Amino acid sequence: MTSASQEIGFQVVHESGNARAGTLRTAHGDVQTPVFMPVGTQGTVKALEQRELLQLDAQIILANTYHLYLRPGVHVLQAAGGLHAFMSWDRAVLTDSGGFQVFSLSDLRDIDDNGVVFRSHLDGSAHTFTPENVVQTQRVIGSDVMMQLDECIISNAAYDDVAAAMERTIAWAERSITTFKEIKPIYGFEQMLFGIVQGGIYEDLRLQCIDAMKRIPFHGYAIGGLAVGEPIEDMYRITQYTAQQLPANKPRYLMGVGTPENIVRAVEMGVDMFDCVMPTRNARNGMLFTSNGTVNIRNAKYKTDQEQVDEECMCYTCTTFSRSYLRHLFMAKEILGLQLASLHNITFYLQLMRSAREAICEDNYDSWMRNVLVKMQQDS
Amino acid sequence: MTSASQEIGFQVVHESGNARAGTLRTAHGDVQTPVFMPVGTQGTVKALEQRELLQLDAQIILANTYHLYLRPGVHVLQAAGGLHAFMSWDRAVLTDSGGFQVFSLSDLRDIDDNGVVFRSHLDGSAHTFTPENVVQTQRVIGSDVMMQLDECIISNAAYDDVAAAMERTIAWAERSITTFKEIKPIYGFEQMLFGIVQGGIYEDLRLQCIDAMKRIPFHGYAIGGLAVGEPIEDMYRITQYTAQQLPANKPRYLMGVGTPENIVRAVEMGVDMFDCVMPTRNARNGMLFTSNGTVNIRNAKYKTDQEQVDEECMCYTCTTFSRSYLRHLFMAKEILGLQLASLHNITFYLQLMRSAREAICEDNYDSWMRNVLVKMQQDS
Repeated sequence: MTSASQEIGFQVVHESGNARAGTLRTAHGDVQTPVFMPVGTQGTVKALEQRELLQLDAQIILANTYHLYLRPGVHVLQAAGGLHAFMSWDRAVLTDSGGFQVFSLSDLRDIDDNGVVFRSHLDGSAHTFTPENVVQTQRVIGSDVMMQLDECIISNAAYDDVAAAMERTIAWAERSITTFKEIKPIYGFEQMLFGIVQGGIYEDLRLQCIDAMKRIPFHGYAIGGLAVGEPIEDMYRITQYTAQQLPANKPRYLMGVGTPENIVRAVEMGVDMFDCVMPTRNARNGMLFTSNGTVNIRNAKYKTDQEQVDEECMCYTCTTFSRSYLRHLFMAKEILGLQLASLHNITFYLQLMRSAREAICEDNYDSWMRNVLVKMQQDS
Repeated sequence: MTSASQEIGFQVVHESGNARAGTLRTAHGDVQTPVFMPVGTQGTVKALEQRELLQLDAQIILANTYHLYLRPGVHVLQAAGGLHAFMSWDRAVLTDSGGFQVFSLSDLRDIDDNGVVFRSHLDGSAHTFTPENVVQTQRVIGSDVMMQLDECIISNAAYDDVAAAMERTIAWAERSITTFKEIKPIYGFEQMLFGIVQGGIYEDLRLQCIDAMKRIPFHGYAIGGLAVGEPIEDMYRITQYTAQQLPANKPRYLMGVGTPENIVRAVEMGVDMFDCVMPTRNARNGMLFTSNGTVNIRNAKYKTDQEQVDEECMCYTCTTFSRSYLRHLFMAKEILGLQLASLHNITFYLQLMRSAREAICEDNYDSWMRNVLVKMQQDS
């Protein structure tokens, strides 16, 4: 177990254009950025064992406050001594606040300045999330990086509605940091709290939000409210704009993004942290990411294909099994197919980020990125 | 990879009462008996990686001719160079002939002395299995132990019907060994062929079948047609009777059995080899085998239980995760729950067999068995 006493924080160690290589120091070890955080919504990265995530050198994973709060529930996590102990994961964990899930999954009952009242998507029971109790719940979870509660809004909302949600998010940010200072960690290690920038696809609203957020002493800042259905040009435009306005000495986290291309482009814009269900969810649908583009392993052309999924990949799946065998596992609906595909896709994402960091440290990011994107566009 | 040139065969190395410790020498390594063979019907032991089976020291696994013949199909297996290469498994494989599946899974069209015509349970396509083509298919699969095609029959069939199926099984046994001699291995290593004793719950029919089978130079003999719904007393009575009539110098395989208790009792009767879907299937239903009885991990009493599933077990699941976490994975329908439970149950079965073998080699089987059975009956 990593020492729980090390100083937490963030340092940029190298820049290449706007792309940054950095280190996020957490109580559960250092995270080399840019980083992709495998999604472990319910306290497990789907179909992967914790020892496999260690072998892949995943330095941080993401879990979800909304899901963990509903199931197994905070008293179960507290009885275990927090999420790290509960799931036997000694490295860093970031928890999303659950704001997005309250707005997208639950039967939303009411939202006002105090917080949100919602019904569980599991059993319909009524619950309230406030900026305060969401920080409190994340103290019980014991995540290394906690996220503030924010108000999420549909991607094509009217300007005034986006502005109102953004203003409420700022008010909630201030209450979050107050609670963060009042309620101390309960497991003997320091946690961080990130603010979330909202403002939709409007640069003036984003700027207004950033200006307010910068005055709140968060450990990092997330770009929220993107990758929710807006045109890809808007996503890139707002990411670029927001990343460049955020403080240079704090980590920048683009929530819920995205494809390998989305990620390497956002790294170029100065983003440090990413999470997305895509590698694991697509894996379970038989879609594999490779250095030469995506592979739909169910395709009949792989029926007797003895080659490995990605010739450049050193993961257990690629070094051990053929496309023919993987196709069979998917056609036969075997669990091992889900395991091997998830293992490969997470390896691909993590390896992509390690290569990106290397390119930044060699002051060569732009050329590296162009090369990667050209190769990935040759769908095999 | 194990040398593919070693002499195949079977030796009994120690006896304790009627229980035997032996070595089945295959082209893909030695198998220490008594042995439990994890079931990998479709070329994968459900929810377990091949490297995990190696870590657990599984020396032989079982696959199924009926399933592999239908999917991925023999041409896919042939293109890979056989099942070992296809699934990247360098240790021994036994294939069931598919007789049982033809009678239980498919829409059976017709059976006569030539063979069986059936429709695939996957797509309704018509196929014919004969004693000859089933051996031929297993040459293509390249299993270390092939099984003859037998006629399976319902457990409460009338005496005359059981007798007729038994007689047909003998005729098919003779044709199987003829084909076995005519069609040579295609991957450069020797395979074995086992005969199957039928005869239902009638000792005179079993004896008649054994007498005929003994004259056919099989590498081993299976006890078929049990654990298909007959009373447990009949299963034990016929197992005991049949095992003792079979040649002492050949391995004895009790097909499809069973619970840990069934297995340790059958070992006492002189059975050497076992297979059963129970450890993996029950695992996927949240039922875990332990040295103190079975655990239904979904039970609410495990909600905050920080103990490991089986205090005596050294598997990854038990040494890493709590009952509380495993329960959560099952309640949240997470794939990792299936993986960790399967890993534990297979570990439990394999460890049980290793302990049984040790007890036999120490001439202490009876006392060991009584002790194990008493402990397992304290359901926790």
